[in-house]
Amino acid sequence: MNKYGAYVKFTAKPGKREPLTDIMLEAAAALQALPECEIYIVNQSGQDPDAIWVTEIWSSAEAHQASLSEPATKEAIARAMPLIAGVESIPVLPLGGKGL
Amino acid sequence: MNKYGAYVKFTAKPGKREPLTDIMLEAAAALQALPECEIYIVNQSGQDPDAIWVTEIWSSAEAHQASLSEPATKEAIARAMPLIAGVESIPVLPLGGKGL
Repeated sequence: MNKYGAYVKFTAKPGKREPLTDIMLEAAAALQALPECEIYIVNQSGQDPDAIWVTEIWSSAEAHQASLSEPATKEAIARAMPLIAGVESIPVLPLGGKGL
Repeated sequence: MNKYGAYVKFTAKPGKREPLTDIMLEAAAALQALPECEIYIVNQSGQDPDAIWVTEIWSSAEAHQASLSEPATKEAIARAMPLIAGVESIPVLPLGGKGL
């Protein structure tokens, strides 16, 4: 089964990147307990002062989809949404390498 | 010291994505021996049939820069260049999360 990967850019509303980053890092901590989530790394954009990039790799697209209905995920999304101006996602298919 | 991260998109010349992918995966295998390279994951683009995305995280920008003069890196770059039509890089600053 193919892994699921994505680079997801969250553009925060002006001045809201820091609280949004905190929520994303909390979400990443909660995902430590979910083995299907293999990578969830929160990054600051090196180009856009309002943006965060999240690197995601899941064991499958189904596992990623199922995670969206986890209570902890729903709760984090509800807290994050008011801080978000836009979301873009670059889908990638992880093949191999160091750290996978 | 800040970690160094990037999403690097390599667009292969028509029909050359597979051999380019092989070279990238070999490079990733060689980087297993380089602790400063924390993540080097090779992905197929989920949008562009000629493109590969590499997710990179290094312990520092200096470590990343130094790696470019490693003989194995130079050799891989020399083999890959004829297969590459274009390169784009999205710089990111890794902050934390699962897999880092």
